[in-house]
Amino acid sequence: MPQFERVVIVGVGLLGGSIGLALRRRGLAQAVVGVGRQPAKLAEAQRLGAVDRFETSLALACAGADLAVVCTPVDQVAQYVADCQRAMPWGGLITDVGSTKVRICRELQLAEVTSFCGSHPLAGSDRSGVAFATADLLEGRLTVVTPSPTTPVELLERTEQLWQALGSRTVRMSPEAHDLAIARTSHLPHIVAAQLAASTPTELLPLAATGWCDTTRVAGGSVELWRQILEDNCGPVLEALEQYAGGLEQWMSALRQRDGKQLEQLLEAGKIQRDSVGN
Amino acid sequence: MPQFERVVIVGVGLLGGSIGLALRRRGLAQAVVGVGRQPAKLAEAQRLGAVDRFETSLALACAGADLAVVCTPVDQVAQYVADCQRAMPWGGLITDVGSTKVRICRELQLAEVTSFCGSHPLAGSDRSGVAFATADLLEGRLTVVTPSPTTPVELLERTEQLWQALGSRTVRMSPEAHDLAIARTSHLPHIVAAQLAASTPTELLPLAATGWCDTTRVAGGSVELWRQILEDNCGPVLEALEQYAGGLEQWMSALRQRDGKQLEQLLEAGKIQRDSVGN
Repeated sequence: MPQFERVVIVGVGLLGGSIGLALRRRGLAQAVVGVGRQPAKLAEAQRLGAVDRFETSLALACAGADLAVVCTPVDQVAQYVADCQRAMPWGGLITDVGSTKVRICRELQLAEVTSFCGSHPLAGSDRSGVAFATADLLEGRLTVVTPSPTTPVELLERTEQLWQALGSRTVRMSPEAHDLAIARTSHLPHIVAAQLAASTPTELLPLAATGWCDTTRVAGGSVELWRQILEDNCGPVLEALEQYAGGLEQWMSALRQRDGKQLEQLLEAGKIQRDSVGN
Repeated sequence: MPQFERVVIVGVGLLGGSIGLALRRRGLAQAVVGVGRQPAKLAEAQRLGAVDRFETSLALACAGADLAVVCTPVDQVAQYVADCQRAMPWGGLITDVGSTKVRICRELQLAEVTSFCGSHPLAGSDRSGVAFATADLLEGRLTVVTPSPTTPVELLERTEQLWQALGSRTVRMSPEAHDLAIARTSHLPHIVAAQLAASTPTELLPLAATGWCDTTRVAGGSVELWRQILEDNCGPVLEALEQYAGGLEQWMSALRQRDGKQLEQLLEAGKIQRDSVGN
């Protein structure tokens, strides 16, 4: 028995497409319906097996749906979630995959959208588009679910069950705790990488080897998506960046004094943390 | 016909081991002899096929050698090269794989070591040890060869031919130009990554996903190797780091003012450079 009768995926890109592929591969839904503004992209998603069919009208797509997953850029999430709720007056679960949560969850709480629980599957990529979607993108990953104080427990648990059914582990955090944490683990790394890529003199790029490529990889991500994320979460990101920049002062001081002992300690602190994560 | 009769590899770790494997796989040497201080590690290199045999005495290893490749940490390169030259009074080529070149090449020029031409294969890894050595580590990579003004052209060309025979492309740079360039493309990325890893609160590490892992990967490299590299090249690295830190100020300013337009420009500058490198 499929867990869902009809699942609506709003925005069928890398993540939306991967969710659709996983739902269909795992037989979790009787039908997966893609929604978007560009019929050509939706047709590609259908051709790749990410959705059973598609609509450009959210209202039509949502007819009879018991789950909607909003996978648009973060700027559009709250509006689409509210639209889904209006199009699903019988209830059903609505969640999203946005990389920032405070603004989205707050707006939806104020709008009294009662069918929503926020989510953030930690499974991004520097690549975007349904062409890169895979049915196993979420397998073994972690998804943060971010209930607001008023989110019914039953809704929260169904949200967790969704991600777990897709192969992900889940962890609960408040939207505020999520945004503070992800500023450190994802948004700061993006800035660090983008600035490193940008600051490398172009004529030296032929000398870029594996180390440079790894360290800068995320900088290849979508400019528009990341501008929205950084604007949305600018407070916590600024704090993380200021602390990071302060830490670089120690390296400059050690280099100025050619202080091998201090360089060793700084390198050691980085290695211990990196080794503890693995991969 | 093998290109070399007897090749001595001083320090059979990731790079030395990979060079040995490639020389043997490609039939480039009649014999590959490993030299080091720890017989257990040398025996492992022999077992893995990286060397035909090994010696703990450099003089014994060098008897009859026509090529010596010094693959030790940079602190020991100049001394070992000078020792090789004494042990190979009939000439032969001596090169190295050190990540810094100015100090090494200058010391050897002052010591009138005439059989040496510096090299740096851009094929490092966060992993070290012969267990990770592979015969194809150098394939498709770039090796910088760094002749001093007094290096005979014939020696330089033989050095280039060596790396090309191992599957690498080559580029010529002065030791000074090399160290300035690699400060930007390798040494700065290491600091950026190590500080990012170190500055992530430990309790948030479970949230580290692909982006964090990529951006910090190089921080897992050997502390001792990297302390030597950063001390050796501290002038150019400090300059690169100061410029990088200055660039971060622009991000802080954009975040403080929640200036989406500037964030977009900064992200765009990073993406253009990153995309131009690929992989």
